[in-house]
Amino acid sequence: MTKSSQQGLTAGVKNQINPMSSAASILTVGSLAFDTIRTPAGVAESVLGGSVNYFSIAASFFAPVQVVGVVGGDFPKEHLDWLAARQIDVSGIQIAEGKTFHWSGSYDTNLNEAKTHATALNVFESFNPQLDTKHRDSSYLFLANIDPVLQQRVLDQKGASDLVACDSMNFWITGKPEEVRKTLKRVDVLCINEGESILLSGQRNLMSAAKMIREMGPSVLIIKRGEYGASLFTDHGIFFAPAFPTPTVIDPTGAGDSFAGAFIGYLAKVRANRDLAKTDPEQWNAHLRRAVIAGCVMASFTVEDFSVHRLMRLTHKEFDARMEHLLKMMIV
Amino acid sequence: MTKSSQQGLTAGVKNQINPMSSAASILTVGSLAFDTIRTPAGVAESVLGGSVNYFSIAASFFAPVQVVGVVGGDFPKEHLDWLAARQIDVSGIQIAEGKTFHWSGSYDTNLNEAKTHATALNVFESFNPQLDTKHRDSSYLFLANIDPVLQQRVLDQKGASDLVACDSMNFWITGKPEEVRKTLKRVDVLCINEGESILLSGQRNLMSAAKMIREMGPSVLIIKRGEYGASLFTDHGIFFAPAFPTPTVIDPTGAGDSFAGAFIGYLAKVRANRDLAKTDPEQWNAHLRRAVIAGCVMASFTVEDFSVHRLMRLTHKEFDARMEHLLKMMIV
Repeated sequence: MTKSSQQGLTAGVKNQINPMSSAASILTVGSLAFDTIRTPAGVAESVLGGSVNYFSIAASFFAPVQVVGVVGGDFPKEHLDWLAARQIDVSGIQIAEGKTFHWSGSYDTNLNEAKTHATALNVFESFNPQLDTKHRDSSYLFLANIDPVLQQRVLDQKGASDLVACDSMNFWITGKPEEVRKTLKRVDVLCINEGESILLSGQRNLMSAAKMIREMGPSVLIIKRGEYGASLFTDHGIFFAPAFPTPTVIDPTGAGDSFAGAFIGYLAKVRANRDLAKTDPEQWNAHLRRAVIAGCVMASFTVEDFSVHRLMRLTHKEFDARMEHLLKMMIV
Repeated sequence: MTKSSQQGLTAGVKNQINPMSSAASILTVGSLAFDTIRTPAGVAESVLGGSVNYFSIAASFFAPVQVVGVVGGDFPKEHLDWLAARQIDVSGIQIAEGKTFHWSGSYDTNLNEAKTHATALNVFESFNPQLDTKHRDSSYLFLANIDPVLQQRVLDQKGASDLVACDSMNFWITGKPEEVRKTLKRVDVLCINEGESILLSGQRNLMSAAKMIREMGPSVLIIKRGEYGASLFTDHGIFFAPAFPTPTVIDPTGAGDSFAGAFIGYLAKVRANRDLAKTDPEQWNAHLRRAVIAGCVMASFTVEDFSVHRLMRLTHKEFDARMEHLLKMMIV
């Protein structure tokens, strides 16, 4: 790549990221939680977690976000207010009687894999997502990692979307394989980690796994590979993005959800959707690749502190600088 | 990256790879062996192996190679003849009385890590590399994974080189740490795998490990990450190259040595060396990055069959096509 094309590229990325006036809106459905986490860097007790917490903060750097979820009376109202202050519509977060979902887990020196110690579903046990009119009007939908039966109920209520993406996890892939398959038939994008891709496909080889999973429904597949980055599979081919190599890795929790938030956020920002995939596949593919880079960059910030702390103090300027830096590490 | 700059890039790569008339010559010192290997794909009994066997075949795609090593009377003369037929000077391979070095190992489903079952050093036990005049005249030197004391003896005999690279392994890093450090002070390039980088530096974090290792001597550090590709660390920054995602992974043995062969071969081909690093650091860095890609591509062929079988039937055309293909997987 020549110097001038490189400057053109990063300049283009910057321009697309900043003002969000023209961005499409994103609806996400999933968990808000308290997490108790032990990592080689320390312990965090009952800190703010949950997939849509990470997802929505990350996505809000690019586009307006609506959240549907449930918390207990013990969830801090100040955090909901903080989310609301950044164009995240929290009116779909129900405050139910009882306690908020609580997850406890740990990571050993292999920071790519969490070990679950305890899961107290609490109010999340009877979560039954309800979409109102404004949620149904959202252009982009991200189904975070919840029961695939609930993911389908959201799809049933949602009606038409410009793009539907989802996540899942080992627990559902093993426990409700048929329901996971039903969800996959209805989504455009699946965003899972490498271990999940092996479990879902029964294939250890990346290429074989990707082929089999894409045959299940999603035309766009992202396999997240922790500190090794992420790979993107589309009709257009394969793309590899490295993780941004931050020297400060405190807690990997939420890396995947914030990856997805920046990825979908980026697409909503540039209004790249299912239609574009048909009308201009080259442009669609270019947007997808940049969205993956945005996801990698966001995840690299997430892991630099416990909970959503690093994301809460992240600036657009910091994000843009790191995105430029990562792009430079990929120039051949 | 624009379409035109992409075409220019791959065209440039191709032009640099094919005719080797102007390439500098490479000397390599290390093992030739019989390997008995079990992988999930099958078993291979007493097949041709050894670091300089893989290295020299890979490097011979780019530049003339000289090999210094030792085999027993049981090593097939036909293989030495085959090497000689491809501009690999095997006159430095001593045929000693006794048996050839024999390694037995296996890989489980995690193909990134070999488990050693047995090592019979045989004639390799008393290996004492002797360089003659033509070896000393070689411009590039690659010290394959042997006792660091022997690596230093080669350096003592060699005199001036345009570029010196080396490999090592856990066995020496743990067993002779002071000698490994002495070797590292005298090389330009270190090419090791991720596990070895953690052991050598005592750092699990990639950035911290790289910083510490580069302070030990090598200004260029390559950390090979198996199916995740390779990372390059220089004064110029960091570069990440993905592995080429071949669907056919039979045997990872020799992937690292053939990576190094293509990497050094590529540099010798374009005559990128220590001087260029000083006079034109941008050009030097660009060559290093392409050399890393060449290494990743070569390694992806190596793993497609047992022993050096895939490399022995690899064509320039196949190599160039896969290199273009991998570069396309990196375009943002």
